[in-house]
Amino acid sequence: MIRRLAVVGVGLLGGSVARAARARGLAREIAGVGRDAGRLGPAVADGTLDHATTDLAGGLRGADLVVLAAPVGAIERLLPAVWQAAGDDAVITDVGSTKAAIVAAARRLAAGRPLAFVGSHPMAGSHRSGYAAARADLFHGAVVVVTPTESSAPAAVKTVTAFWEGTGAARVVTLDPEAHDRAVAAVSHLPHLAAFALVDAVARFDPSALDIAGRGFRDTTRVAAADPEVWEEIFLANRDALREALGAYRDSLAALERMVAAGDAAALRETLARTRARRETLP
Amino acid sequence: MIRRLAVVGVGLLGGSVARAARARGLAREIAGVGRDAGRLGPAVADGTLDHATTDLAGGLRGADLVVLAAPVGAIERLLPAVWQAAGDDAVITDVGSTKAAIVAAARRLAAGRPLAFVGSHPMAGSHRSGYAAARADLFHGAVVVVTPTESSAPAAVKTVTAFWEGTGAARVVTLDPEAHDRAVAAVSHLPHLAAFALVDAVARFDPSALDIAGRGFRDTTRVAAADPEVWEEIFLANRDALREALGAYRDSLAALERMVAAGDAAALRETLARTRARRETLP
Repeated sequence: MIRRLAVVGVGLLGGSVARAARARGLAREIAGVGRDAGRLGPAVADGTLDHATTDLAGGLRGADLVVLAAPVGAIERLLPAVWQAAGDDAVITDVGSTKAAIVAAARRLAAGRPLAFVGSHPMAGSHRSGYAAARADLFHGAVVVVTPTESSAPAAVKTVTAFWEGTGAARVVTLDPEAHDRAVAAVSHLPHLAAFALVDAVARFDPSALDIAGRGFRDTTRVAAADPEVWEEIFLANRDALREALGAYRDSLAALERMVAAGDAAALRETLARTRARRETLP
Repeated sequence: MIRRLAVVGVGLLGGSVARAARARGLAREIAGVGRDAGRLGPAVADGTLDHATTDLAGGLRGADLVVLAAPVGAIERLLPAVWQAAGDDAVITDVGSTKAAIVAAARRLAAGRPLAFVGSHPMAGSHRSGYAAARADLFHGAVVVVTPTESSAPAAVKTVTAFWEGTGAARVVTLDPEAHDRAVAAVSHLPHLAAFALVDAVARFDPSALDIAGRGFRDTTRVAAADPEVWEEIFLANRDALREALGAYRDSLAALERMVAAGDAAALRETLARTRARRETLP
């Protein structure tokens, strides 16, 4: 049981962390830190937060678990101040979609003051943003990746893992930060880029076609409803792995196009069948 | 009110046509024609079909509306036999995903015997196939495209339009067959190809990443669960328009990749925001 949970950034993800902790009794006390006091109001009013503050030091005081839930770039910029404000025994984690840069920044800070940091990435979200979209069950059934390094204290890894399990996550998977970034480039960042490109291409190729779009188009492009600011940061933070994944995607598209151009029904059918079977193995 | 509806091909789409007609009382009598008598059994047993036969001529006898619901290539191959078997007053339509080749074949046959054919394409489906996946409400809220030509009899267009409206379709849109094929290349065939390519690329790039795939990847690739035989035929039947749409998609991907490579946050954010806004205009 956490005595005091501090959530920094009370939007979709941070708000859902706080709501899940409240609903499932994971913490005795929950503090929320935000840049705008007005935006923290609803989370206090509905009983999710016990304390709301714009002062990082005040919010982190006495916290035994700190969850940083700002956009990816902001997490890295926040770390030095978090390092100053957190107590000696605090365990710090985050929810950023890329991990290598954040984990490296935390390691540099830990060389000066040995605080326990374990990166996290819950594979859950919404195209909606802000606290109004936060849900106590957002992590229910989700996969959460945690990215300890060889210098992470086992007790801190255990605290963070147990916390995510407590929110209802179906599985907590451990990956090193670089492997995580490569994996999410493939299964998250590339699909987002592909969805944005698909909407853009159709809008240029045949805008009136959008009038007859059915469920297939909606599903395939749903993630293109995601927040442009959040995703611009993610794409740039993970640009090397994303570009590698994009290269693989280009190759797959080109291979399919060659079969279509050649009218090679047998190869096309075999490839589609193999791909469908591969997808059916998704957990 | 249709006296006798004949559905040729009683799988997902044909079965759903028959079920919708039964549930909504659109036809007094419903006949189903299939290649395999055993597979027609369930649709007779559950009361959807009054008659089931493997004999096209027998199934079409007395039908005032004929719906061809075979795969795209099979529809074109079936047309000469349908032209022989149908009565003089029958209105014939189909549910094929491409329209130019089918409509052209029907026009050639109509030069010999003036039967009324109006192409249709309900923008509804499922990654499941077969009669077991058929649903009376499959077309509920869907868009259906009808593709009459200048030689189509207005009464036949009206019959087909009224039939789809009767199944619960939200809108029946009229397009010429070539405009239809271009539009579905963009909003249906390209997204399917992109989804197959995405699964293939991730499986090659980082197969273990599939273990942590979340809802975004599932949604973006849902249509890659589609039937390989059906989609091989569709891709090849519409290959010219599909390749044009693929060209536009490649350009959109390349433009986004250039912004990522250059670290151009402002351009990226502007493009993502514009694309998101475009998607929000979907009907």
